[in-house]
Amino acid sequence: MESHKITLLGTGLIGQFYTMTLHGQRGRDRVHSVCALTDDEARTFADKWDIPNFTSDMEKAINDPDTDIVIVGIPNDLHEKAVRLAAGAGKAVLCTKPLGRNAKEAKSMLDAVEKSGVFAGYLEDLCYTPKTLKALKSVKNGAVGTVLWARSRETHPGPHSAWFWDLEKAGGGAIVDLGCHCIEIIRGFIGKDIQPVEVICTADTLVHPIEAEDSSIGLIRFANRAIGQFEVSWTFRGGMDLRDEVSGTEGTIWLNHFLRTGFEMFTAAGQKGYVAEKAETESGWLFPVGDEVVELGYVDMFTDMFDSLEKGIPPMETFYDGYVVNAIIDACYRSARTKKWEPVELFEWRGKQETEEISGLKSFDEDHYLIKTERMPDGKTKTILKNKKTGDITQKID
Amino acid sequence: MESHKITLLGTGLIGQFYTMTLHGQRGRDRVHSVCALTDDEARTFADKWDIPNFTSDMEKAINDPDTDIVIVGIPNDLHEKAVRLAAGAGKAVLCTKPLGRNAKEAKSMLDAVEKSGVFAGYLEDLCYTPKTLKALKSVKNGAVGTVLWARSRETHPGPHSAWFWDLEKAGGGAIVDLGCHCIEIIRGFIGKDIQPVEVICTADTLVHPIEAEDSSIGLIRFANRAIGQFEVSWTFRGGMDLRDEVSGTEGTIWLNHFLRTGFEMFTAAGQKGYVAEKAETESGWLFPVGDEVVELGYVDMFTDMFDSLEKGIPPMETFYDGYVVNAIIDACYRSARTKKWEPVELFEWRGKQETEEISGLKSFDEDHYLIKTERMPDGKTKTILKNKKTGDITQKID
Amino acid sequence: MESHKITLLGTGLIGQFYTMTLHGQRGRDRVHSVCALTDDEARTFADKWDIPNFTSDMEKAINDPDTDIVIVGIPNDLHEKAVRLAAGAGKAVLCTKPLGRNAKEAKSMLDAVEKSGVFAGYLEDLCYTPKTLKALKSVKNGAVGTVLWARSRETHPGPHSAWFWDLEKAGGGAIVDLGCHCIEIIRGFIGKDIQPVEVICTADTLVHPIEAEDSSIGLIRFANRAIGQFEVSWTFRGGMDLRDEVSGTEGTIWLNHFLRTGFEMFTAAGQKGYVAEKAETESGWLFPVGDEVVELGYVDMFTDMFDSLEKGIPPMETFYDGYVVNAIIDACYRSARTKKWEPVELFEWRGKQETEEISGLKSFDEDHYLIKTERMPDGKTKTILKNKKTGDITQKID
Amino acid sequence: MESHKITLLGTGLIGQFYTMTLHGQRGRDRVHSVCALTDDEARTFADKWDIPNFTSDMEKAINDPDTDIVIVGIPNDLHEKAVRLAAGAGKAVLCTKPLGRNAKEAKSMLDAVEKSGVFAGYLEDLCYTPKTLKALKSVKNGAVGTVLWARSRETHPGPHSAWFWDLEKAGGGAIVDLGCHCIEIIRGFIGKDIQPVEVICTADTLVHPIEAEDSSIGLIRFANRAIGQFEVSWTFRGGMDLRDEVSGTEGTIWLNHFLRTGFEMFTAAGQKGYVAEKAETESGWLFPVGDEVVELGYVDMFTDMFDSLEKGIPPMETFYDGYVVNAIIDACYRSARTKKWEPVELFEWRGKQETEEISGLKSFDEDHYLIKTERMPDGKTKTILKNKKTGDITQKID
Repeated sequence: MESHKITLLGTGLIGQFYTMTLHGQRGRDRVHSVCALTDDEARTFADKWDIPNFTSDMEKAINDPDTDIVIVGIPNDLHEKAVRLAAGAGKAVLCTKPLGRNAKEAKSMLDAVEKSGVFAGYLEDLCYTPKTLKALKSVKNGAVGTVLWARSRETHPGPHSAWFWDLEKAGGGAIVDLGCHCIEIIRGFIGKDIQPVEVICTADTLVHPIEAEDSSIGLIRFANRAIGQFEVSWTFRGGMDLRDEVSGTEGTIWLNHFLRTGFEMFTAAGQKGYVAEKAETESGWLFPVGDEVVELGYVDMFTDMFDSLEKGIPPMETFYDGYVVNAIIDACYRSARTKKWEPVELFEWRGKQETEEISGLKSFDEDHYLIKTERMPDGKTKTILKNKKTGDITQKID
Repeated sequence: MESHKITLLGTGLIGQFYTMTLHGQRGRDRVHSVCALTDDEARTFADKWDIPNFTSDMEKAINDPDTDIVIVGIPNDLHEKAVRLAAGAGKAVLCTKPLGRNAKEAKSMLDAVEKSGVFAGYLEDLCYTPKTLKALKSVKNGAVGTVLWARSRETHPGPHSAWFWDLEKAGGGAIVDLGCHCIEIIRGFIGKDIQPVEVICTADTLVHPIEAEDSSIGLIRFANRAIGQFEVSWTFRGGMDLRDEVSGTEGTIWLNHFLRTGFEMFTAAGQKGYVAEKAETESGWLFPVGDEVVELGYVDMFTDMFDSLEKGIPPMETFYDGYVVNAIIDACYRSARTKKWEPVELFEWRGKQETEEISGLKSFDEDHYLIKTERMPDGKTKTILKNKKTGDITQKID
Repeated sequence: MESHKITLLGTGLIGQFYTMTLHGQRGRDRVHSVCALTDDEARTFADKWDIPNFTSDMEKAINDPDTDIVIVGIPNDLHEKAVRLAAGAGKAVLCTKPLGRNAKEAKSMLDAVEKSGVFAGYLEDLCYTPKTLKALKSVKNGAVGTVLWARSRETHPGPHSAWFWDLEKAGGGAIVDLGCHCIEIIRGFIGKDIQPVEVICTADTLVHPIEAEDSSIGLIRFANRAIGQFEVSWTFRGGMDLRDEVSGTEGTIWLNHFLRTGFEMFTAAGQKGYVAEKAETESGWLFPVGDEVVELGYVDMFTDMFDSLEKGIPPMETFYDGYVVNAIIDACYRSARTKKWEPVELFEWRGKQETEEISGLKSFDEDHYLIKTERMPDGKTKTILKNKKTGDITQKID
Repeated sequence: MESHKITLLGTGLIGQFYTMTLHGQRGRDRVHSVCALTDDEARTFADKWDIPNFTSDMEKAINDPDTDIVIVGIPNDLHEKAVRLAAGAGKAVLCTKPLGRNAKEAKSMLDAVEKSGVFAGYLEDLCYTPKTLKALKSVKNGAVGTVLWARSRETHPGPHSAWFWDLEKAGGGAIVDLGCHCIEIIRGFIGKDIQPVEVICTADTLVHPIEAEDSSIGLIRFANRAIGQFEVSWTFRGGMDLRDEVSGTEGTIWLNHFLRTGFEMFTAAGQKGYVAEKAETESGWLFPVGDEVVELGYVDMFTDMFDSLEKGIPPMETFYDGYVVNAIIDACYRSARTKKWEPVELFEWRGKQETEEISGLKSFDEDHYLIKTERMPDGKTKTILKNKKTGDITQKID
């Protein structure tokens, strides 16, 4: 039973969630060294979470001789540097989302870990929620047939730290912050081996005094003609809206990760404490979640990362995945400017090289294709057919 | 207390729903004359619904001397002819959705009723669902602030009559059949006096052996920068998915009209009868609706039409609205071909000529704009600010 | 097409809901004469609803020569007098719920209408909600098999008029006010021809300074061993909770009539207007209903009443039903005092005289009864059997 | 960082869930020795879960020198023996629910562990679901005021192993199997220090060929007049229905643990695999849960047990709790026979000795109590008052 000692870079909300997960329940891995912007912040965090070593010196933290894994949980503009250092130190490196501010940065990080040969994992937690994992399994089992469309939506009233709102540090606005989740969720449902081909995207700054976009809708067309749809916004009112929908030839999946999960509370007195991430109200009808670090995927994510590291196999979410996400985001920003569909540009496609296009042709009899059947209010059944030769469409009622 | 005698053209599903509504509950208006494709169909329908006159001759039905209103419930390619005849006969005319197969046809119908001066109503039932009417009232009262985004989704496994699937008769596929609903719902929430400016749209034929599109996603940008989003499909599995979502600067609205309305049933024995329109299964978990003609808006729609006619005012949904919807649909088809945003071309805009753009600038103090505040898991409150002069983004924690 | 002119007694909330229903949509029946406690209240109401005649004299209103139906919508202690006067005037009489303050009063009203031979209807609106009507139809079709258990729950923060809280005028507290609905809903699902045999009931006054109970839970055992369960309270926080659940040998039904019907709204600005009956908050997450008079059953109730009157048949809800409900309530109050199961005492049972008891014995093979089968996490199926002779219980795994 | 080696008694469904939890994610505790009915079953289980030692000899397993904790996951009639042996061996003992078949057995087990001084935990998983834990915290913070009523419902189509259906081995039917969960959940919400005083209960065998009850409803009255309500059944159709509802003076909580948790799937193709515990269908609309061992409380339960053991404090759920639950169940069976409220008989009450009764008296002004206020459809506000001296109830409208 192996266990790990971890260097954690970053003590913001994501650093807290990571540590809460790793030190939570009966876990056997521990954050051993933590690095914050200042010594004070590092000390406070180390005290709170019982972490032996702390520092504000990133290199020192990475090179702590007792740790074998580096977790990168710092602002986007610092990912590349941190990953290079960790790879240089020959340590496994797990990097939070998005991988880079753009595909160029992501590619550079991918190169760094591939050249040094260290284990690398992309910490895309929302692909690991227990609901998503089970839904993905159902999709793989064929429960919904071929996926035609996947919608992933993440909207809330805006992030909790200043740097997210800063175009230079973040590399973008809601698309970079939230869209990276949605895009990878969509890839999971449609099939990570099916190439994303082109995108159309809006990027608007509607209600905040910022340069970055606070609202965006994007469509991604895949090689088999399936469509992914993301909706991201920092303008949503009512909490954090995290929903995914999947439509396939044989079925449908609806996931609600946060606002409607079977936990409903009305309080006239007030909740008197933390409700849930991005909750906007503390009285009236509230919708808490059970265990946030479970429901948001952190637990299963770290399990996959550490188990894969121990088995010597790649995790479910790799740096290459992070790179593909960044490449799609880059195409989204181009599309928002050109107002046209823009190709997704990848230096290399590691999935299927040839993809069969979706098609639903079903023969009804020798002469006809079946279009559909439906039970009518009067109890009769209508069948709609297309003549294979003439193309005529007819109906019969039984 | 006025009441009306009606000529009904068409005895398909929509004709049945209309008659079920008019003859239902304690209504005082009656279908008096019905016209079907054949005498036999007309007789059967007249017998079933206790209608005195029936015929397969459209002109004869329209000119029935006892009726004062003509309801057009026939395939799209016959709307124009029927409306012209009714207008020529000097009768009030109510036409089912979509108004035309395209804006040119719709414009011709609009001209016909405006020239003859008859009362004309656009039978867009889904704008009249009780939930939609109440939600629209809340929006008008300012409950959600300025609407930034409205999503309307209508998807099911495909229509029940052969002509819908025929490109020539219908004028299009899922966009014409379902998108017309969504577009007008979106206009209602964003504001019918705010001009729709441009659209981007996909139109794919994924699983049916037809020429028309069976799947489409469209975005509509309005003059104030709000975005409407429609999703329509004949490929959805699981019933009829009718949902609307509205995001405003101050609030959110979610409407579910069909599959999740507080009526859930599990049956191992089987429902043994009609479940609901487009239901796919008859055992297991089923989701019926209470009274379909109420929930789908038919009751409130006819009340508005007849009450408006009696008061001499335009109804909530006019032929001009139907025309605008057709113009947006035309732009959608152009966009699907050109793969670019296409302008919505209107011969005349009857709404606001100047529209203020959405903006959410809020001052925090003399020197700063407020970006946001959030309660953190540790109970503290973060406030994120932007310096009005330098543009710097900072945060403070209380 | 017959229509009716109505004398309405009572201008409180229920009188408003009744008139809103009758004068709503395209109805052909009208309130023609209204009676309130004072002339002023009567005039105000008549003006608001366009009613020709008004008075504070109950007899005068009942004897208005132009009306053929009397609707009784006044406090419980006045029902008997009003019904006697209406029956004496030879007019159809429709009485709001509960019929009497107790079974004795209800029996006296039943006798009055049966002796005079006038049409009489029991205005139990919640048995007529569109969802309930459709669910009852499914139950009759066998969709859930034999009903074993029905739960009906109505709770809210307390009624809106002073007399409800007055033990003498109302005849009781939450049981009389809300339980009457629940009991009749339960009878509908279990079968109105199956005799209610005995009840156990709690009646507590927990949070209000009143003599009547503000909270009660009751169980009703029927002749076939099915159990009805009602939960009523004037202490609930969060709005009006109206839910029914039905369990049968072959299925399950869950109805939510008010707080979760597919209409969800978040507003930071405030709803700025009426939300829904008994709503407690005007901002945050709100759950309005579409059209309250439809969803609460008023529309279908009056249709059944007037249609039945015209056809000369009894309505779905009769004075005898109201009497049975009162008899069950009487037994509930006795049980709350004696703390034992108390028999339901009926002067006459008009349903089935002999009822088969529920039993689920299924043979698996010659020697065994089947207890159950279940799919296990490992994909295998377990079958649990009982030996018909020895009674031994065994399992086999396939 | 301490970790534990465990002796597991029992390899049925509960043994599997326990092991799946302990060996799941990155846990540091392991089952080291497993005991089944036969050597073969023990070997198969040990192989599957990578457990070093296996046996069919309970004493040998308990006395495995490498283990420090014994987990009892065997049929109810064997709990007492196993607990005595574990206590005798001086090992910490964790016993599955119910503790005993009755209070006498539970008392004997409680005595055994208290005399020997070993750590003992009651494995009541459903009190540890993440939703329940968070809801309990809100209740403790005062978010719902004083709890007046708690409903806990657990129903499904019946258990998966033969012994559950055997009255002698199980000690009862659905009350023992499912009611034990509900009763402890209720105690948690109402307050574990508030004494349960008396119960009324039904126990019916409706659809299975067994001696034990397959359906039961029970009410528990607590010392402060709050009421607990459990509903248990082996006759439910549609899956496993696990819901809790809490009503307090200031708020409401609704928890849905299984059938409606934000995961909805329609499949025409069939799920092709395990759906969820007690799922009845494999196509149509299905409602899986994310991670069953999390959602059902197993993860947080073992964390509390092991953490408490290490800290030397009692766990949240103790053998005394298990004993109280058994005592309440005993009173339920008596009540089902006598058809009266029966006292809960406890050898010793360890909670509050004196409890204040619930009361909601609020003064409105010097002369009046406030009964309630409500916003009416016309926008006015009604206030209902009771005169402190005369008791008269009046209303005023603003």
